[in-house]
Amino acid sequence: MTVQSKSAARPNTVTTGPIIGSRKIYTSPDGRPDIRVPFREIALDPSAREEPYRAYDCSGIYTDTGVTIDLEAGLPPIRAEWIAKRVFDKIAPRAVKPEDNGFVGAAQAVPACPAEIAVYGAKSGQMVTQYEYAKAGIITEEMIYVAHRENMGRTQMIEGAEARVADGESFGASIPAFITPEFVRSEIARGRAIIPANINHPELEPVIIGRNFLVKINGNIGNSAVTSGAAEEVEKLVWAIRWGSDTVMDLSTGRNIHNIRGWILRNSPVPIGTVPIYQALEKVDGDPSKLDWEVFKDTLIEQAEQGVDYFTIHAGVRLQYVPLTAKRTTGIVSRGGSIMARWCLSHHKESFLYERFDEICDIMRKYDVSFSLGDGLRPGSNADANDAAQFGELETLGELTQVAWKKGCQVMIEGPGHVPMHKIKENMDKQLRECGEAPFYTLGPLTTDIAPGYDHITSAIGAAMIGWYGTAMLCYVTPKEHLGLPNRDDVKTGVITYRIAAHAADLAKGHPAAKLRDDAVSRARFEFRWEDQFNLSLDPDTARSFHDETLPKEAHKVAHFCSMCGPKFCSMKISQDIRVEAARMVGMEEKSKEFADQGKQIYLPEIAAE
Amino acid sequence: MTVQSKSAARPNTVTTGPIIGSRKIYTSPDGRPDIRVPFREIALDPSAREEPYRAYDCSGIYTDTGVTIDLEAGLPPIRAEWIAKRVFDKIAPRAVKPEDNGFVGAAQAVPACPAEIAVYGAKSGQMVTQYEYAKAGIITEEMIYVAHRENMGRTQMIEGAEARVADGESFGASIPAFITPEFVRSEIARGRAIIPANINHPELEPVIIGRNFLVKINGNIGNSAVTSGAAEEVEKLVWAIRWGSDTVMDLSTGRNIHNIRGWILRNSPVPIGTVPIYQALEKVDGDPSKLDWEVFKDTLIEQAEQGVDYFTIHAGVRLQYVPLTAKRTTGIVSRGGSIMARWCLSHHKESFLYERFDEICDIMRKYDVSFSLGDGLRPGSNADANDAAQFGELETLGELTQVAWKKGCQVMIEGPGHVPMHKIKENMDKQLRECGEAPFYTLGPLTTDIAPGYDHITSAIGAAMIGWYGTAMLCYVTPKEHLGLPNRDDVKTGVITYRIAAHAADLAKGHPAAKLRDDAVSRARFEFRWEDQFNLSLDPDTARSFHDETLPKEAHKVAHFCSMCGPKFCSMKISQDIRVEAARMVGMEEKSKEFADQGKQIYLPEIAAE
Repeated sequence: MTVQSKSAARPNTVTTGPIIGSRKIYTSPDGRPDIRVPFREIALDPSAREEPYRAYDCSGIYTDTGVTIDLEAGLPPIRAEWIAKRVFDKIAPRAVKPEDNGFVGAAQAVPACPAEIAVYGAKSGQMVTQYEYAKAGIITEEMIYVAHRENMGRTQMIEGAEARVADGESFGASIPAFITPEFVRSEIARGRAIIPANINHPELEPVIIGRNFLVKINGNIGNSAVTSGAAEEVEKLVWAIRWGSDTVMDLSTGRNIHNIRGWILRNSPVPIGTVPIYQALEKVDGDPSKLDWEVFKDTLIEQAEQGVDYFTIHAGVRLQYVPLTAKRTTGIVSRGGSIMARWCLSHHKESFLYERFDEICDIMRKYDVSFSLGDGLRPGSNADANDAAQFGELETLGELTQVAWKKGCQVMIEGPGHVPMHKIKENMDKQLRECGEAPFYTLGPLTTDIAPGYDHITSAIGAAMIGWYGTAMLCYVTPKEHLGLPNRDDVKTGVITYRIAAHAADLAKGHPAAKLRDDAVSRARFEFRWEDQFNLSLDPDTARSFHDETLPKEAHKVAHFCSMCGPKFCSMKISQDIRVEAARMVGMEEKSKEFADQGKQIYLPEIAAE
Repeated sequence: MTVQSKSAARPNTVTTGPIIGSRKIYTSPDGRPDIRVPFREIALDPSAREEPYRAYDCSGIYTDTGVTIDLEAGLPPIRAEWIAKRVFDKIAPRAVKPEDNGFVGAAQAVPACPAEIAVYGAKSGQMVTQYEYAKAGIITEEMIYVAHRENMGRTQMIEGAEARVADGESFGASIPAFITPEFVRSEIARGRAIIPANINHPELEPVIIGRNFLVKINGNIGNSAVTSGAAEEVEKLVWAIRWGSDTVMDLSTGRNIHNIRGWILRNSPVPIGTVPIYQALEKVDGDPSKLDWEVFKDTLIEQAEQGVDYFTIHAGVRLQYVPLTAKRTTGIVSRGGSIMARWCLSHHKESFLYERFDEICDIMRKYDVSFSLGDGLRPGSNADANDAAQFGELETLGELTQVAWKKGCQVMIEGPGHVPMHKIKENMDKQLRECGEAPFYTLGPLTTDIAPGYDHITSAIGAAMIGWYGTAMLCYVTPKEHLGLPNRDDVKTGVITYRIAAHAADLAKGHPAAKLRDDAVSRARFEFRWEDQFNLSLDPDTARSFHDETLPKEAHKVAHFCSMCGPKFCSMKISQDIRVEAARMVGMEEKSKEFADQGKQIYLPEIAAE
């Protein structure tokens, strides 16, 4: 189903309605009925005799059948009351300038999103960031929200009649059996987790990023000078979160980016990240050497007032590191990194982002915009992985992390890129060491360079591994990486692929509740509950359509076989029969004794015993 | 391009012609001009000033423009002279029986492939297997062939003007800088590698499987009772090897399987594996309890005479292990495993495969059919990974490996399945220990169960990791796994995905030549040689079409940007400019000194210096 807005020039359609087989529910933490946390409930066939499975849900109200979507009005500001209580200054928003939208002419202009928010800023010295609250021992509504959200399934694990044990190797992470708001607070206070939550993004459903929580994923959207506009970008946002993108970065670089960003923010329930240097560069006609502190600062304020939740800041690209990239196979591949390297060389000066880092912190603190310290010198090929330029920058990011924390800011650190498997762990270990366990946020890494067109896969391998080792958020890579701008299908493929990587990492880390879903799928598979298997999967539509390609009839949805092996050869079918057989054997004293005499044991299978 | 055969009832079309941008070449080992080893040569743009890249090539003559394909005549028997020299008995082939083709009626019958081979068998006591030759210190033509084939790129690494160092972590593998025929012989003699090469498969281009060689992949084809026939299967074979399947397993289970197998073998340049118990079961109307040694033995001989190169034999599914599966989440998921478990329970007897293992060895040795000892009790879900049933069977496979070696047979061991990341290495370590380093051949493993429709990806993560740890061959998983029979597109996706996993493993192990291809792609990428980037990739067609979706014009194939970022924001472009800039700085004494005073060094970039 799609929703239409009034004007064709504006974003007019987005995908709504639940994922097939699911329904949106909300539950509240004890004693806080005002905090409503969304989940996606997947009902199972009565024959399963199982409770519905409850999945983490970052899709916002777009998957809720009980609401009306109005893109021009924006989402309900669920954080508005929490923020209001904190009594920030209401500030007169910075006036929009022609360069904010790339001097776009009237004919090509995307209108501003009519939804309006009050714009707030903290006074100097006034507590505002989640980090500051956490350090002061204060538990915010955002912390209560994410604690409840993360506990999905853990009660079931703890209280389950059957004692379930989640094993795993967490490489020093400390994932508790149950997440309390106090645990959330303590992790944020230690700098080990962040809740990116600009006080000017009241529509946000808070999400926590840290290695003692569920591994998160980010999806990138954004137009470029070559293609796409506002309508596509809002739909890409809604589409990305539908399939499981925990945060979304808007990497737009063309015209209209101020107004497109407005549409995105007012309609986004997930944290939105940006790379402000992109827009700053647009404002100086694309010439890096013309960049200066004033235009950058102005851009930070512009975007912070709109409500962007985290900024990628490439302040680690110092002049001294630039020559280290000259002999690289692929030089500098980060856009922001190459812009700043160019600036440093052109002026033969230290980066103004590095030199003005204190001031950047002050601006970001004022609105609680989190840092995503950019890895401008990340390797763009396996050949350049873990080299002096990359690790030099990482050391500087560690130094900047300490500065940002002292200033009261929330911080995460961006990581590579292209890294062969045997060099991945070194990245994670060094990041934890240099950056005081601030959350790591990596792009992939891609484990080989030879498969353009399949880099969602080359990178899912690296992403799953680095997620296991401790990365808190994985930035997706789509099949179009290196080749072109992703379309809607690519976005979905990228998101699902990264949900796989994140979940595989959660499982391997020993997250207490991760395996509940695997086990539910496996039981459905073994019991030929085809619909349950589809609905419990990350992408029910694709699972169902693949099955139906060869066995389309409804009757086949309850068939005890599929087209892979056909009815005679189904191992699951034979295996079920074996259970019955084994149970019968147990009943037959004679046979049973024979086994006992041989020192063997037949366990009474549960299914057959019922 | 497609090739037509004379009759529509027979396999009539297969895909031929080179992969775009490549051409087939052959080179010979020193002093053996009679041994012609195929490679795929990828020419690069003259601006690259690089030699053509030479890729491993398992596609057979189907990608050779200089030959005529005649499916009815079969491939040229390149091993015929080698085999003839060994003077085996020419034997009267076993007559085809109606049950071999599932009692198919005339109307549905697939005709036999008219290509005929002389059928050989070794006399008792006569040396026949590659293992026996290796133990006797004899280097066969097959060993010379694979040594030459595996050395691809190594000379370049050793003799390169620039000293190239391949780093890596091989977990105890011993990959030499250069592969000699003697090294191949010694690895086979130690049981650490096999060359599956039935003396009745003269069309075979030999391939070596072992952890000190390139990681190989297998693609499964085969019809089922529900769908597909001979023409599709031969095309699937040709299609799978075109994209890089090193071996192919024919898992057919329906009617006509004897004749379909004939078409496949006579037209296959890669080793063909089968699971003989599938056909044996067809012969007894699909009732496992009716299986016996006679029908199984007859099937082994039938298939060995046709030329099958390796058999999956589930001889490790012993009666005592069956009850261990009763409490599993997904019971027994291996078809062969479930058939044998059912047989054991029905008769309450030890498996006849286990009890007759000596006789099986004698039959397989006679034709040099390699063992692929099946993991009939592999886990079908993460919940069942590394349990008592799985590891008990693995210990039995270790015991059987010793028996098979004593009998002179080549052996590899099949592995899981579904295993979360933190339990993968334990599988590899135990396999090496229990099975005396016999090559491990794993299916995935899938690292999570929650993504049916994407199990090529859930399993590529596990496959890359276990390949890195030491697995010699990775059995592909297609997107249709758990849902249906793969079609042509699924086969390609599965093969490319597993080539990614195998290559990522080679890179991480520190294979001396693996990174040459990554580096070639990366240089092409950095220098905007788009056509080179496409042609060097695993799937040039997909890379090219993804690029062309947004920038279709020919001019864009030399453009210094793509649609991801557009011209203004291309980091690679900026980075190239930086190189020039940095070089200019080096020329300017003053600036250079400033750097030197700060103890920093600007390296003269090679490109700019030219």
